[in-house]
Amino acid sequence: MTSIVPNQWYVAGYGREIGRREEGGDLFSRTICGESILFWRTQAGALTAMSDRCVHRRFPLSEKPSHLVGDTVVCGYHGFTYGADGVCVAVPGQTRVPRTARLRSYPVVEQDSFVWVFIGDPDKAESTRIPRAPWLDQEGWTVVAGMEPLAARASLLVDNLMDLSHETYLHGGYIGTPEVAMTPITTEVDDEAGIVYVSRHMDDAECPPFYAKSTGLSGRIARWQDIEFAPPCLYKLHSRIAPVGSVPNDDGTDPDAFHVEVVYAITPETESSTHDFWMVARDFALDDQGVSGFLAENNRTVVLQDVVALDKLEQVLAGEPDGYQELSINIDTGGLAARRLIDRLAGERAPAGAR
Amino acid sequence: MTSIVPNQWYVAGYGREIGRREEGGDLFSRTICGESILFWRTQAGALTAMSDRCVHRRFPLSEKPSHLVGDTVVCGYHGFTYGADGVCVAVPGQTRVPRTARLRSYPVVEQDSFVWVFIGDPDKAESTRIPRAPWLDQEGWTVVAGMEPLAARASLLVDNLMDLSHETYLHGGYIGTPEVAMTPITTEVDDEAGIVYVSRHMDDAECPPFYAKSTGLSGRIARWQDIEFAPPCLYKLHSRIAPVGSVPNDDGTDPDAFHVEVVYAITPETESSTHDFWMVARDFALDDQGVSGFLAENNRTVVLQDVVALDKLEQVLAGEPDGYQELSINIDTGGLAARRLIDRLAGERAPAGAR
Amino acid sequence: MTSIVPNQWYVAGYGREIGRREEGGDLFSRTICGESILFWRTQAGALTAMSDRCVHRRFPLSEKPSHLVGDTVVCGYHGFTYGADGVCVAVPGQTRVPRTARLRSYPVVEQDSFVWVFIGDPDKAESTRIPRAPWLDQEGWTVVAGMEPLAARASLLVDNLMDLSHETYLHGGYIGTPEVAMTPITTEVDDEAGIVYVSRHMDDAECPPFYAKSTGLSGRIARWQDIEFAPPCLYKLHSRIAPVGSVPNDDGTDPDAFHVEVVYAITPETESSTHDFWMVARDFALDDQGVSGFLAENNRTVVLQDVVALDKLEQVLAGEPDGYQELSINIDTGGLAARRLIDRLAGERAPAGAR
Repeated sequence: MTSIVPNQWYVAGYGREIGRREEGGDLFSRTICGESILFWRTQAGALTAMSDRCVHRRFPLSEKPSHLVGDTVVCGYHGFTYGADGVCVAVPGQTRVPRTARLRSYPVVEQDSFVWVFIGDPDKAESTRIPRAPWLDQEGWTVVAGMEPLAARASLLVDNLMDLSHETYLHGGYIGTPEVAMTPITTEVDDEAGIVYVSRHMDDAECPPFYAKSTGLSGRIARWQDIEFAPPCLYKLHSRIAPVGSVPNDDGTDPDAFHVEVVYAITPETESSTHDFWMVARDFALDDQGVSGFLAENNRTVVLQDVVALDKLEQVLAGEPDGYQELSINIDTGGLAARRLIDRLAGERAPAGAR
Repeated sequence: MTSIVPNQWYVAGYGREIGRREEGGDLFSRTICGESILFWRTQAGALTAMSDRCVHRRFPLSEKPSHLVGDTVVCGYHGFTYGADGVCVAVPGQTRVPRTARLRSYPVVEQDSFVWVFIGDPDKAESTRIPRAPWLDQEGWTVVAGMEPLAARASLLVDNLMDLSHETYLHGGYIGTPEVAMTPITTEVDDEAGIVYVSRHMDDAECPPFYAKSTGLSGRIARWQDIEFAPPCLYKLHSRIAPVGSVPNDDGTDPDAFHVEVVYAITPETESSTHDFWMVARDFALDDQGVSGFLAENNRTVVLQDVVALDKLEQVLAGEPDGYQELSINIDTGGLAARRLIDRLAGERAPAGAR
Repeated sequence: MTSIVPNQWYVAGYGREIGRREEGGDLFSRTICGESILFWRTQAGALTAMSDRCVHRRFPLSEKPSHLVGDTVVCGYHGFTYGADGVCVAVPGQTRVPRTARLRSYPVVEQDSFVWVFIGDPDKAESTRIPRAPWLDQEGWTVVAGMEPLAARASLLVDNLMDLSHETYLHGGYIGTPEVAMTPITTEVDDEAGIVYVSRHMDDAECPPFYAKSTGLSGRIARWQDIEFAPPCLYKLHSRIAPVGSVPNDDGTDPDAFHVEVVYAITPETESSTHDFWMVARDFALDDQGVSGFLAENNRTVVLQDVVALDKLEQVLAGEPDGYQELSINIDTGGLAARRLIDRLAGERAPAGAR
């Protein structure tokens, strides 16, 4: 299974992570799919993304004393200076700037609170193909969010999120109840759109603390988990919580239910580490800081339970002999479908005969 | 020289390390010869040993929130549940358990206070071939014991223990005196039984603090060191301390002497790390807590002196070019014989032509 | 580019680092070009250099409880004992010492405050070829000095020191001013002597704090930087500071100027780490402790700024794909010439056809 798929859009961060607070600050670097990328904003606020290695002696442009001057970034080692397009505009000791002195520049898009960056051949970067998560930046929704560094390959997080039966065991007392592991799933794959759907509708289930405390519901609930994963990066869990027996109206309205959009962006940092971005958007208690604080704290705890488990699994994988055989069962159909789509995306980079 | 020999019994721990104090606790994991093994006791107290990797997604069964329920262990990731024989008895989301869902199970024997585990083909596990150290669990003897993790390959500890001339230098002031390095040794090999014997009888020697304080002897002593090593794991040093001139009676009784059985179990954790189990059994001052405390503290200090030296040697070996040539002398005959027996055991795993 | 060049003299340390304060102490070990070398002084004060690995079981002779006894060193593991020439003179348990029991011994020379050691074939060790830095141990000069461990290959420090335009950016506020990066250099190579010269004469420049506070000059200065690098190890920067318009007299005297000899010894520890020895010798304020303290503190700060940057660059290099292309400009002519000379020295070890 391939962890890093080229020629794809990946979430590099939240737009708010990259600021322009004052002259000289605000150089932001993150490694995406093994590439060290420098992000900064022009004085007008436009985002730029370029290689974080000076063309001269590869000093990282995000390292002090590198700094911004107006709409240029100045290398802290020998002063090579670059514009927002990555083109070098000044070098030390001479007035002529070599024609080839330019940094690799990356297509970048701000959307739905994210910074999306395209890793691969820029000619293939169609921004219309970026999957959407509108609730993250939309009237009528309140969002809590974070990012946890994961010392594990991205595929382990994909496995984890595609099979929520683990909530019962790894997240018992937070989001897991017995019904999650007991209730069968249905899986669908839209091969053309490249999306995996996994649904688990529990019509009469215990309400876990995560939802009881945030919605105020007591007693048993209808709990629907509808996963929509657009490999390689964007994972959405449409979560519906309602009193037992309540269903949406024919016109799509659903006044008795609480809706939570749990979103993950799964961005490989390297072959064996991942940026684990997580968000929880809700359509209720919009201004209730107590609910926001509870959901942020509780979801972060759940994410960190996964991080501990997956970091451990990465160590196990790194130490095991080749050819280890996993055993898969019905709950794994979503995860296996995701692997297949990811492998297909990875295969697009080269004809089969060339591999 | 091979550090890890397959198809052998190894000491995995002391029986008392693996408890069954309460429901849900007491999952004990240790890596033996590179294999992560889970140990636990049934409610009736029987020992079990099985792979510490769930067959589903390889989560370690010793990691929380994995736990015991009755005589089964439940994986903390997705709830796969296994019996004491390693066979899976329940999986999430379906009632049918796949036929192939079983953990590798290891032959295990409790004897002489040890937990012995067989690494290799279970069909070759003859428990009668396990070497004995009866003093460790016998009326008339008092034992102090411990285990120190060694960041060095097992062969370095074998070298160390087979050549006690190092006591004079590395353990001066504890168990070493000038006579140890000065007195020649005799070495015998029982090729059929697979045992190396090394003897050094000092008939008029300084009494080191280790023995002076524990026996109460003052002045010079007769000190006999009789090593009996059953590769790859069990090392016994039969140590006899007596007033100068005292010898055992013809009938084997030896009333004027103090007997100490120093036992080491040398268990590879990985190719470059070792579990260094040590025990000191004595036939005198049986109920004297002061003597027990002194011997435990003093022997641990000596073991840690070895650990520091051998950890350093492992770093040296790891960094040196291939083909480094050691120089061996008479004191090394025991260690070289042990290497030869170990190489022979290692050779049994495959015909020469296949290597 | 090769970081470690064999058959060369390298600075192993300052002579004062290796003492003979009392019986049993003073075993000094340092890894030079990947070789662990033991240095000690005989009772008469003569320096010795030999392999830091006992011939028996490779225990480091610099590790406790190894110790000096008279003019011999005794291994702390089994007591093998060696003279100042590295020849073994005693082993445990037998009186005969094997003929082949001798440590590799290294040519060593004390000169200009340094301990120079020859790495390679001892027959090629001509001490007359050791480059000189007389100011380090000469009447009329005062020296401050130190050594910082660099977690980067030696070639990165060579690059750094050969191109001082980086002073403007990396060392701004210490030794850098705008004129350093702006002023063109001249580069000369003496291929026969194997020396690279790089000169930058700034006739009207800002005086950086490093020189303003130490010389007392205020206002603008003439600042000459004349580099003389004798690969692979000895780098000298002849620095001249004077009032604007002052030049040396025809007879070589230069009464209005302040002279500082900045010396670096660049000694590979391993392929990716370096001993970064630095010295600042001056011909003024010879007895002024305040000036000495200021220069020592300020220069160490500058060296550590380089260390932080080069350690980072080493990580970048270690992680980058093969075939990465640097871009070089005029300021790099000195560094590129140094690389060429070092490659030539490295090539001397074997005919081209054999590589």
